[in-house]
Amino acid sequence: MTRVAALSTPSAGAPLEPTSIESRALRDDDVRIDIKFAGICHSDIHQVREEWGTAIFPMVPGHEIAGIVAEVGPGVTKHQVGDRVGVGCLVDSCGECEFCKDGEEQFCAKGSVPTYNGEGYDGEKTMGGYSQQVVVSERFALSIPEGIALDVAAPLLCAGITTYTPLKRWGAGPGAKVAVIGLGGLGHMAVKIAVAMGAEVTVLSRTLDKKDDGLALGATNYIATNDDAALKDLRSSFDIIINTVSANLQIDTYLAMLRPLGALANVGLPSDAWQVAPGSIVNGSRVLAGSNIGGIAATQEMLDFCAEHHIGATIETISADRVNEAYDRVVEGDVRYRFVIDTATIPAA
Amino acid sequence: MTRVAALSTPSAGAPLEPTSIESRALRDDDVRIDIKFAGICHSDIHQVREEWGTAIFPMVPGHEIAGIVAEVGPGVTKHQVGDRVGVGCLVDSCGECEFCKDGEEQFCAKGSVPTYNGEGYDGEKTMGGYSQQVVVSERFALSIPEGIALDVAAPLLCAGITTYTPLKRWGAGPGAKVAVIGLGGLGHMAVKIAVAMGAEVTVLSRTLDKKDDGLALGATNYIATNDDAALKDLRSSFDIIINTVSANLQIDTYLAMLRPLGALANVGLPSDAWQVAPGSIVNGSRVLAGSNIGGIAATQEMLDFCAEHHIGATIETISADRVNEAYDRVVEGDVRYRFVIDTATIPAA
Repeated sequence: MTRVAALSTPSAGAPLEPTSIESRALRDDDVRIDIKFAGICHSDIHQVREEWGTAIFPMVPGHEIAGIVAEVGPGVTKHQVGDRVGVGCLVDSCGECEFCKDGEEQFCAKGSVPTYNGEGYDGEKTMGGYSQQVVVSERFALSIPEGIALDVAAPLLCAGITTYTPLKRWGAGPGAKVAVIGLGGLGHMAVKIAVAMGAEVTVLSRTLDKKDDGLALGATNYIATNDDAALKDLRSSFDIIINTVSANLQIDTYLAMLRPLGALANVGLPSDAWQVAPGSIVNGSRVLAGSNIGGIAATQEMLDFCAEHHIGATIETISADRVNEAYDRVVEGDVRYRFVIDTATIPAA
Repeated sequence: MTRVAALSTPSAGAPLEPTSIESRALRDDDVRIDIKFAGICHSDIHQVREEWGTAIFPMVPGHEIAGIVAEVGPGVTKHQVGDRVGVGCLVDSCGECEFCKDGEEQFCAKGSVPTYNGEGYDGEKTMGGYSQQVVVSERFALSIPEGIALDVAAPLLCAGITTYTPLKRWGAGPGAKVAVIGLGGLGHMAVKIAVAMGAEVTVLSRTLDKKDDGLALGATNYIATNDDAALKDLRSSFDIIINTVSANLQIDTYLAMLRPLGALANVGLPSDAWQVAPGSIVNGSRVLAGSNIGGIAATQEMLDFCAEHHIGATIETISADRVNEAYDRVVEGDVRYRFVIDTATIPAA
């Protein structure tokens, strides 16, 4: 056991504060990672504030982790000390069910173990990446290729894989027309990845405030969704729409923007049910899909893809003392486009 | 021009009555088909009763057509006199747009021409299969393989392709678990085709009234949807669900029966919007899809598949004087499982 500095929230909605936590002694297949950077995902905030059902406190959030391997267990073969590695939303799964065997560990039949706000198969609570070290099985430590700096790599572990998965599943590539709803942490990654896949990308955002950014990220078109006339022009326009926002959209309006056989994939969780007119999907054989992160092999594939295409997140790096303020700014949408915590600034408690 | 006996409805909701219609003189690529059998699809009834928006009267319904080629235009290469052929929901498309080139003629950018209740590119109203002859471009005349009798082949041209398309798109095959909601004209075809594809099939029907039939068609399980406890046991059970009913279902209940990454494909058009809780599809990366018939190449593939697996529709053959009664029975669900009109019984008007 090793005591390491971390940021923890003691109870639902309380501010994050410096603390120290114990990381477990290395098991045979474990790696100890010196965390360098941890991204702030909106889902961290939902869990810290217990907005997604009962949560476990004290909580050290963070599932967008990038660092360096500091120590390896005796059975470790995939990584060695000094390797650049990342950890995403999962730190364990049964490894034996058909989903694990298919590389879809997030759907493990036994239940995959989340990086924080969860419990390992040993009964120990899991603690996330707002910390200076983490110990995980090597199976859940991804290699971060040399082509990506660790700070801009961190958000790829959640925001990257969350958007890469539906883009790949629904066929983004040369010739495909992709729309991305919302230009935030997830949306800006969706734009970068879809552009790198060769698709023609349109951003659908409430206003034109971020239009210059969107075009700089590689989007060809940028449409304000408060412009009804512009929206009507988009009927039957896209092969794929990635909806990254958690606002309660009139989903039929967006389904109508799909070309026949197209797919609208949702990665956010709005509070209200979507109202889907049957004709919106039956006519044109359209698809309303959900998408929830991605498996370990796909995450490695995404990291390799991003390195090859020189893609990282667009980030604002902050010190540990600014995390609570950053949370408020994320909720207000005031970040371009992901906060990343420099974990070296977490003080010893 | 040739006058042929047909059944026509003069105005919205009026009974069908014997009449005679003119079929066009053969164009270069046309075939004249002596219709032997025409299936009664529920959509015929919706259109005759003008329940799907403004319709064109007088109307000769019918898009499940099986017959014999009687005459061919000078440029016809695909068929010859005496060939067994079928016509489904489409009789023309532009042939040049990307959808036509991809074999998805039903989504033709210019607008595909429906077999009846539509207008050809020449401005002539189209007339369907409740008739003794029809003239269509050879591109829209499918070959009915020797292995299937014409009477049981007729319903394949709509009910067959409508269910084959989503089963194929979403991966029905050995190892896949498929549920079919509703055991009617479409549902019984979905069961037969899914079983022939090698899937394990469960029927979800309001009651157990047709259980013996469902099992005889090859289903492994048959569950009454009025049995709440039985439904709960089905959570995360199916890779694919084909919803063939037009009743207003609680769709979340059925989405919960999908395994992660599974797809629920709807081929009917209920009157009300579906209420889809975001978590129902985002968790588990599930899919809510629609499906609308299929293209010409896929329809030929389906006919060849059905012949290879000795699949035809289960039918009740009726004479022309019983069509209006049959309509009422279809609406009441009193048919196992498709009415087929013996067009030889249509009297000369």
